[in-house]
Amino acid sequence: MSEVYAARRTRLRERCEAAGSEAALVSGDANVRYLAGGAPSGAALLVGPDQDVLFCADDPYADASVGRPAEDLRVVVLPTPEGDPAVAGAERAVAAKVGSLAVEEHHLTVARHRALRSVAPGLRLADLGTAVEQQRMVKDDEEISSLRIAAEIADHALGELLESILVGRTERHLALELERRLIDHGARGPAFPTSVGSGPNSGLVGHPPSDRRVEEGDFLSVCLGADYRGYRSEVARTFVIGTSPADWQIELYEQVFAAQRAGREALAPGAAYREVDRAARLVLEGAGHGERLGPRIGHGVGLEIGEDPRLAPSAMGKLDACVPVTVDPGVHLPGRGGVRIDDTLVVRPEADGGPELLTITTKELLAL
Amino acid sequence: MSEVYAARRTRLRERCEAAGSEAALVSGDANVRYLAGGAPSGAALLVGPDQDVLFCADDPYADASVGRPAEDLRVVVLPTPEGDPAVAGAERAVAAKVGSLAVEEHHLTVARHRALRSVAPGLRLADLGTAVEQQRMVKDDEEISSLRIAAEIADHALGELLESILVGRTERHLALELERRLIDHGARGPAFPTSVGSGPNSGLVGHPPSDRRVEEGDFLSVCLGADYRGYRSEVARTFVIGTSPADWQIELYEQVFAAQRAGREALAPGAAYREVDRAARLVLEGAGHGERLGPRIGHGVGLEIGEDPRLAPSAMGKLDACVPVTVDPGVHLPGRGGVRIDDTLVVRPEADGGPELLTITTKELLAL
Repeated sequence: MSEVYAARRTRLRERCEAAGSEAALVSGDANVRYLAGGAPSGAALLVGPDQDVLFCADDPYADASVGRPAEDLRVVVLPTPEGDPAVAGAERAVAAKVGSLAVEEHHLTVARHRALRSVAPGLRLADLGTAVEQQRMVKDDEEISSLRIAAEIADHALGELLESILVGRTERHLALELERRLIDHGARGPAFPTSVGSGPNSGLVGHPPSDRRVEEGDFLSVCLGADYRGYRSEVARTFVIGTSPADWQIELYEQVFAAQRAGREALAPGAAYREVDRAARLVLEGAGHGERLGPRIGHGVGLEIGEDPRLAPSAMGKLDACVPVTVDPGVHLPGRGGVRIDDTLVVRPEADGGPELLTITTKELLAL
Repeated sequence: MSEVYAARRTRLRERCEAAGSEAALVSGDANVRYLAGGAPSGAALLVGPDQDVLFCADDPYADASVGRPAEDLRVVVLPTPEGDPAVAGAERAVAAKVGSLAVEEHHLTVARHRALRSVAPGLRLADLGTAVEQQRMVKDDEEISSLRIAAEIADHALGELLESILVGRTERHLALELERRLIDHGARGPAFPTSVGSGPNSGLVGHPPSDRRVEEGDFLSVCLGADYRGYRSEVARTFVIGTSPADWQIELYEQVFAAQRAGREALAPGAAYREVDRAARLVLEGAGHGERLGPRIGHGVGLEIGEDPRLAPSAMGKLDACVPVTVDPGVHLPGRGGVRIDDTLVVRPEADGGPELLTITTKELLAL
């Protein structure tokens, strides 16, 4: 396994050298884990000309669920809580005669950056930008396999919930039960706070579960995901409570479903991010919901739940094969409720059967 | 209620003016909430010479559990996900003819700070430092009342757990059950990830619950807290599983208990942070555990679980009345396990009865 992380660091080293920096200091948590194999929060990784060094403020072996540092890394645990791993990384770079160091200016605060400069006044600091985030977009088989399991776990948890009585229970309790089931099925934890919206709260993105009880006739929308080995899936479904959905519910559901399908079908290597967004958005604009749509129709998933790419009108770039993304349109009608349908898929070429659906819970409108 | 937040902003404004800045741009989440009354994550608050303005990327009224912006604030919701509330705040400062703006350099990233500078090249940017964090240390009655409820909730959850059968259950399931009970008793959620450590895992700070099952003869240490209206309590207790604790368990428990009591008794207005740490640390050093102690013996709690002050050997400063802190020493013996005892208390003068204990679960060594 160590070779995977070493190869990732080699790619980063090459990219740095091409951009004129002798070394990189990585401090974004997910970026450090991606390159190191495992690290506690707040760690910093020096990817340099010599041996790479992981600086941690906490014991990197205390929490096996975030993985362990690769064996070829040198690991330095700082003795005091005041020690800043990024500052220690800069000091090491100076000691190793590095002249120019690329840092993650979108993760480092102004205060930490200043502390770096003050311990290493002769070091030329450059911006690494989102180089590691870009490198993380295309996943390898192992990563996709973790995502597949994360998706299965969430499907299981959701399936079991649907077999239980829902009327009369609060959004908060349903969310808790889902999170318990995620862990029962092997998740390290929820990938993000589980959202359960009933009645007028249904269809709201990221709705925090409230004390509202599920009632007959409600729409019930649920959005959850599992964290498996650090990889995070996302799935949302919307149901109707009671025997017969109202006409407006059936109509709205069909509109969102059609939009979500259009988005899924637009996923292909070479498709522009904005085209995927456009495919789903057009359907809902045609149904008169243009004003009610969120800023994007999907996003990448992996070590973080909302990572690159963004599938949005203004996003620049094209999909590659083996990029896992969500397609998650939704419409909320104020005072009435709404629908959200969300899958995690992996972009695959047509020849391989097209996009691989990881979240397989049915998207028929279930009346529960 | 609006007056409370307005008064907090007035204090900050005065402090800014004294330091030579005409306005402040606050971007730390807890700091924004403290001054605004409620705000979604990522918001920024311009505390200026004119009307104060809260800039949000998300709807500030969507999640009532984080509170609502005070009514006298002007609220601006940015239209797109690309809009940075802090950048919008800087633009507004320029439009309001502000010449110098203090920003939170320990919260803003280098990249965001640069974006601020580029939209407002004529604006003189200064560092607000931890002015708001300092202001947050001494709590008002309303805040202490929220913390008191948060502590009661955690006590209830813990008390109920102790009435159930523990042997054979995994750390992970015990942690989940505690978190469910926190919510049952009215918490918005756990104040931090609940830690449950059994046997060799007991006594480890922040131990993430594993699949290890509780066994006869184990130490079981539990650390949890409730988030009530944004305010976070913390309590830890250690128990013995089975009828009769071993001698080493009784001895270690008594040592940690004595240290924790010494720390609690050292809490008083005017006491130096390091004196409190010293009081507890001396007891454990005397028992030969000096090498096994963590870097600090307690910390402030409030809108964040680990806020100022730090009760540590190198900490500078003295306690004030109405500062809520934890006293949480612990010792872990590798391979055997350990003890952690942690309370949330409010510093009070002797005349008012001394420190107010918020977490009242017994600290006798219970054999369960």
